[in-house]
Amino acid sequence: MRRAVALAARGLGSTSPNPVVGCVVLDALGRTVGEGWHQRAGGPHAEVHALTEAGGAARGGTAVVTLEPCDHTGRTGPCTRALIEAGVTRVVYAVADPTPDARGGAATLAAAGIDVEGGLLAAEAAEVNAAWLTSVRHGRPHVRWKYAATLDGRTAAADGTSRWITSAEARADVHRLRAEADAVLVGSGTARADDPHLAVRGVPGAVQPLRVVADTEADAVKPGARVLDDVAPTVVAVADDLPGDATAHLHEHAEVLRIPRAAAGRGLDVTALLAALHARGVRSVLLEGGATLAGAFVAARAVDRVTAYLAPALLGAGPAALTGGGITTVTEALRLAVAGVERIGPDLRVDATPAPAASAAASEPKES
Amino acid sequence: MRRAVALAARGLGSTSPNPVVGCVVLDALGRTVGEGWHQRAGGPHAEVHALTEAGGAARGGTAVVTLEPCDHTGRTGPCTRALIEAGVTRVVYAVADPTPDARGGAATLAAAGIDVEGGLLAAEAAEVNAAWLTSVRHGRPHVRWKYAATLDGRTAAADGTSRWITSAEARADVHRLRAEADAVLVGSGTARADDPHLAVRGVPGAVQPLRVVADTEADAVKPGARVLDDVAPTVVAVADDLPGDATAHLHEHAEVLRIPRAAAGRGLDVTALLAALHARGVRSVLLEGGATLAGAFVAARAVDRVTAYLAPALLGAGPAALTGGGITTVTEALRLAVAGVERIGPDLRVDATPAPAASAAASEPKES
Ligand SMILES: NC(=O)c1ccc[n+]([C@@H]2O[C@H](COP(=O)([O-])OP(=O)(O)OC[C@H]3O[C@@H](n4cnc5c(N)ncnc54)[C@H](OP(=O)(O)O)[C@@H]3O)[C@@H](O)[C@H]2O)c1
Ligand SMILES: NC(=O)c1ccc[n+]([C@@H]2O[C@H](COP(=O)([O-])OP(=O)(O)OC[C@H]3O[C@@H](n4cnc5c(N)ncnc54)[C@H](OP(=O)(O)O)[C@@H]3O)[C@@H](O)[C@H]2O)c1
Repeated sequence: MRRAVALAARGLGSTSPNPVVGCVVLDALGRTVGEGWHQRAGGPHAEVHALTEAGGAARGGTAVVTLEPCDHTGRTGPCTRALIEAGVTRVVYAVADPTPDARGGAATLAAAGIDVEGGLLAAEAAEVNAAWLTSVRHGRPHVRWKYAATLDGRTAAADGTSRWITSAEARADVHRLRAEADAVLVGSGTARADDPHLAVRGVPGAVQPLRVVADTEADAVKPGARVLDDVAPTVVAVADDLPGDATAHLHEHAEVLRIPRAAAGRGLDVTALLAALHARGVRSVLLEGGATLAGAFVAARAVDRVTAYLAPALLGAGPAALTGGGITTVTEALRLAVAGVERIGPDLRVDATPAPAASAAASEPKES
Repeated sequence: MRRAVALAARGLGSTSPNPVVGCVVLDALGRTVGEGWHQRAGGPHAEVHALTEAGGAARGGTAVVTLEPCDHTGRTGPCTRALIEAGVTRVVYAVADPTPDARGGAATLAAAGIDVEGGLLAAEAAEVNAAWLTSVRHGRPHVRWKYAATLDGRTAAADGTSRWITSAEARADVHRLRAEADAVLVGSGTARADDPHLAVRGVPGAVQPLRVVADTEADAVKPGARVLDDVAPTVVAVADDLPGDATAHLHEHAEVLRIPRAAAGRGLDVTALLAALHARGVRSVLLEGGATLAGAFVAARAVDRVTAYLAPALLGAGPAALTGGGITTVTEALRLAVAGVERIGPDLRVDATPAPAASAAASEPKES
């Protein structure tokens, strides 16, 4: 199953709106005879790739799959039928399929006399499919907020300079995150300050993500902005009450999405923005900031993963990584659990996901 | 040598102003026959402990020591003589002794016909002795700045609440850092806000550090303050121009150190404060904050190690871990190198030391 999860991960960034899936087929003696992964939406499922490679050797063997095999006829036939026809006698899968029309695969296989077992390495398989599972469960894209800061939490120095806080290695890693995401999102403040390009560079075979700028008043993305080139598609999200000609300068090079304004405060409604992206097929968003837009996502509790690149450096002044998340007291903090820590060149990459329950033991006695 | 370094570490916190030293004695066949470490100032050196345990088995054997054996007669005889008399034929040490009156040990041993080799695992052995080596080289105590913050660099929420940002495990780890230090230091702001106790609790066999408060005007540490109890000795550092009666309320329970004011800005002169502590036998200081005093230490480039406890939580508002370090632009950032990352309960502990040379590639092209 570990191998199947690794195979599934190869599909990250190119299968959306489908899940990533990996499959290993073993023959009756337990030898690997086929491997496959879902490579792109509309293409064959992982099971079909693996069964094709296995050929007759699959008969009497086992299929190990990261997701419960589908039972419906979409652009491709149901995988359950392919597995039954190939003559496998055992199917082991990690995560049950939560979609209403594809689930039921395990039952169909069992009814055909196949020995079916679910739940193996489910946590790891769920993690590789986090974007897709989030989008199915919550009806909105999975949001990963990425930021780069010093150890003391600054994203720039007092005079605004920030090139470079993190290393070239960390910046290259961000391009891999972009390649895995369906969309990359920044606020108008970042668009105005940095004129970012937001496309993927240096990742062989990468599918370019949709570039999205939350530019309420349609005044930050100017003609000639780097996001308006043709390297990748671009959406500029603006308020739905702007006059039509306010966005005239954008239409030639970008799609304009009209989104309701936030009920309180400034900017666009985060939930509506995510819903509009979801409707457009976006299943995963890499939120690249800045601090203000990230704060709005934290306030909306719409952050599913935080990836912090921390440079071992101290600034002691300068803007913070996150502002205005609506948190005023420590018991309201957005508590996370560390999912991984990695060294990227001289920097640290810390991945964390919202903790299921608050854990601060607020009632403990004074200690310092 | 790895074993000798581990033995040396057992002395951390109780050998000051001496170094920590570990020693393993092998017999002629390479079997371990004696182990020792320097346990407290005035007590026998590591070599003597290990040779005593080895007895006659040391003859023809090897002594592995973390620091070049001393060649001078202090409160104990020179270790070189003990090694020669024990008949060892080989001495391997890690770090050369930089002190003017103790060094020369390697030459003395070699002159006696012993095969001497230095430099083995020197980096690790230097790290365990960082406090002592810093104090010998710079004539001031080694300073470790410790802080606790959220992943986004906040030490408290917007309303000032901070109990608890980090976990009980992280707070227990701080007590181990206190136990390893000769002195624990906070500024008057922390004394006023938290009335901290600053003593070690929950570390068996710990020697209590000297508690030090930088209280320029002698108005933060009030009668009845927790640092004035008799669990550990306390120093209150005040400005040297205060009238004598300004410190009257302190003398019964603390020692008052009079220090010149900083040339610019408020507070005490950091270099003078460190010199006064050094003169008092302090070789290592655990600087526990707050952000203002830490900023003064960063500005004075008097931070030798940073230990950050990062809680996987986001606040988006509230005080920063470090302020006023005198850094205005990104090229002036205090660049560090990560020395270690550890998970402490749910939190991360990041250790970093000032990098030998700035590493930011400031001239690289625009990338985002
Ligand atoms: N270190 C890093 O990882 C990193 C990453 C990105 C950016 N940055 C830096 O951050 C700085 C810009 O940050 P910033 O905070 O000023 O800008 P930002 O977060 O990129 O943009 C904020 C703006 O987005 C618009 N917006 C649209 N919908 C919003 C909503 N729901 N909530 C809040 N804002 C919404 C608002 O302006 P309108 O309503 O007028 O459109 C708001 O002022 C730049 O200097 C950039 O270099 C650093
Ligand atoms: N999360 C953590 O790790 C942590 C650790 C410690 C404290 N804290 C929090 O930090 C807050 C207090 O921080 P703070 O920044 O206000 O206080 P602080 O750094 O503890 O103390 C600052 C004060 O120290 C005095 N001082 C003496 N010599 C100084 C010098 N050379 N440079 C600067 N100041 C010098 C100054 O006041 P005078 O000149 O008037 O004496 C100065 O205002 C508290 O809320 C505390 O809970 C957090």
